[in-house]
Amino acid sequence: MITNDFYSQENVGPYEVYNLGDFELEDGGIIPDLKLAYTTHGELNSAKDNVIIIPTWFSGTSKDYETYIGVDRTLNPDEYFIIVINQIGNGVSSSPHNSPEPISMGSFPKVRIGDDVRAQHKFITEKYGIEEIALVVGGSMGAQQTYEWAVRYPDMVKRAAPIAGTAKNTVHDFLFTKTLNDAITSDPGWNDGNYSSHLEVADGLKRHADIWAVLGMSTEFYNQEKWTLFDMDTVEEFIEEFLRPLYQSLDPNSLLTMGWKWQRGDVSRNTGGSLEEALGRIKAKVFVMPIGEDMFFTVRDCEAEQKLIPNSELKVINSICGHFGLAGVDGADYHRQIDNYLNELLAINVVEPVLD
Amino acid sequence: MITNDFYSQENVGPYEVYNLGDFELEDGGIIPDLKLAYTTHGELNSAKDNVIIIPTWFSGTSKDYETYIGVDRTLNPDEYFIIVINQIGNGVSSSPHNSPEPISMGSFPKVRIGDDVRAQHKFITEKYGIEEIALVVGGSMGAQQTYEWAVRYPDMVKRAAPIAGTAKNTVHDFLFTKTLNDAITSDPGWNDGNYSSHLEVADGLKRHADIWAVLGMSTEFYNQEKWTLFDMDTVEEFIEEFLRPLYQSLDPNSLLTMGWKWQRGDVSRNTGGSLEEALGRIKAKVFVMPIGEDMFFTVRDCEAEQKLIPNSELKVINSICGHFGLAGVDGADYHRQIDNYLNELLAINVVEPVLD
Repeated sequence: MITNDFYSQENVGPYEVYNLGDFELEDGGIIPDLKLAYTTHGELNSAKDNVIIIPTWFSGTSKDYETYIGVDRTLNPDEYFIIVINQIGNGVSSSPHNSPEPISMGSFPKVRIGDDVRAQHKFITEKYGIEEIALVVGGSMGAQQTYEWAVRYPDMVKRAAPIAGTAKNTVHDFLFTKTLNDAITSDPGWNDGNYSSHLEVADGLKRHADIWAVLGMSTEFYNQEKWTLFDMDTVEEFIEEFLRPLYQSLDPNSLLTMGWKWQRGDVSRNTGGSLEEALGRIKAKVFVMPIGEDMFFTVRDCEAEQKLIPNSELKVINSICGHFGLAGVDGADYHRQIDNYLNELLAINVVEPVLD
Repeated sequence: MITNDFYSQENVGPYEVYNLGDFELEDGGIIPDLKLAYTTHGELNSAKDNVIIIPTWFSGTSKDYETYIGVDRTLNPDEYFIIVINQIGNGVSSSPHNSPEPISMGSFPKVRIGDDVRAQHKFITEKYGIEEIALVVGGSMGAQQTYEWAVRYPDMVKRAAPIAGTAKNTVHDFLFTKTLNDAITSDPGWNDGNYSSHLEVADGLKRHADIWAVLGMSTEFYNQEKWTLFDMDTVEEFIEEFLRPLYQSLDPNSLLTMGWKWQRGDVSRNTGGSLEEALGRIKAKVFVMPIGEDMFFTVRDCEAEQKLIPNSELKVINSICGHFGLAGVDGADYHRQIDNYLNELLAINVVEPVLD
């Protein structure tokens, strides 16, 4: 275990922690005393039918969704009980750097999207007795978890809105994520995950950030000098004062745990490898919401999956920021699109089974 | 100087070598006895008006264009005198690994696209007395040189066909190339360019290749499992038995020399920074030929430049291989598109000035 202030209550909280006890993983091994960090917004109503679940994205925490939630927004805590759950390994929930032996640091086990969703299910059923989810919504790896929720618990999930993510990761995306991981593991300071401070891996994290610069935004983002959206005056500032410090503040093993998981996101693991069967199992009303300029979770890939989901629609979000559009720095325009689509989705009555 | 058999006559020849003597570079410094390696196809006619110039792409050599040339093709040696010229630093022309002190290995100077084109101009005027070029055509960095030819020698170049490349490199492309370069320089075996064998940089070259895997092809290339076009049965084979060995056989300093040059390709250096003025200067008839799925020399970026060229047309090449479409492994369909457009271009009469 080592300390990394990035993940502190002061920086990414306030969050609460639920202890699930020993948790068996799909790929073998156990996380003893698995801890899920989470935040809630609003109150669970007596019918327990106002629940919204939001899982986190790669490198993100529950704090990143604060800009999606508000009393003047679709994700309105006056109306819904919103639970934002930090994925396993994200540095806040049980993760390599904050876990004791025998799963500390480089010994942390492999975790899959399915593990996250089973853990989240256990958490919300045990703690709140929730049996119905009005909406699961999340971006990127949050979308992967959203799909997993809809496929794994089809009777429980009434609506789903995967934003900028896929149900089954593509080969291209796997290769992209590999370069992100390799940037870290090629740093001698990484030392098979057994560094004494994330600062020893600063060079690897810098290269990791620089690869994000290429795929995370869009080509047009740079043409139109949109780094101003991140309050940066030049592209050099955007790289050196925003992107690199962002990733260099994070825990390398945490990024690798999430990267491994992201690469292997695949709901067809629930159906013996048939994506058609897995997505065909979904009973939720689904809005598939790719971002138009996304370079790795492309509209084309998301649309191909949407066509396999019975009760679904494709809703493309426009953002020149590409995948990083998720950060919401486009401002009101991005959030207006998200709010409008989620509002439309939540208004759809799916209390009755949508399939015969 | 070190030996690398990849660049031998046996492997990428037969090629000839022209010695230009001491050559001053735009960024300062001199290459003593600059050697340009080249191949010719066909004969220079008595009017000296059947010349086609083809500059090479990143990591490529004159041999890579053999599939573009033939008696049954538009680039027909029975009709044209075709000179394929290896760019400086590509490992065959004067390059870090084949140059003596004081410019050997890590001491090789910075070379720009403008240096290449000035050297090529000196070569063909000195050796052949050429005053008119029917066509300059090249892919990727070959396109960068093609644009430089058309801007720098507007009265000489009658037609130009930049394939999958830009006149002024984009910020996004600069950042992409940076990740390719950093993959090499982060390898301790690189040793500031002073390794004793390229094999010492195998890890860095592997990561370099893996980044190419993400940007070099298209997302759809992987979805449709098109690695079969490269005679590979699985994506693992495509990466491990094609891409990695390809780059691991090359000289790291050579790739870095070309990478630095690629990043800074910019015809507006000829006009005090005005791209509009530089491209407006072109008198050649130009077919701008991006590849539809190209992830870094995008159609959108190429089209923006095409609109600034007086006598030009946009001709998009379809290839699921993305930028690697240049390799021509799509087979007849790719080459048929190239041949048809070049045939159309060569048929256009531009003997009279096209501008008032």
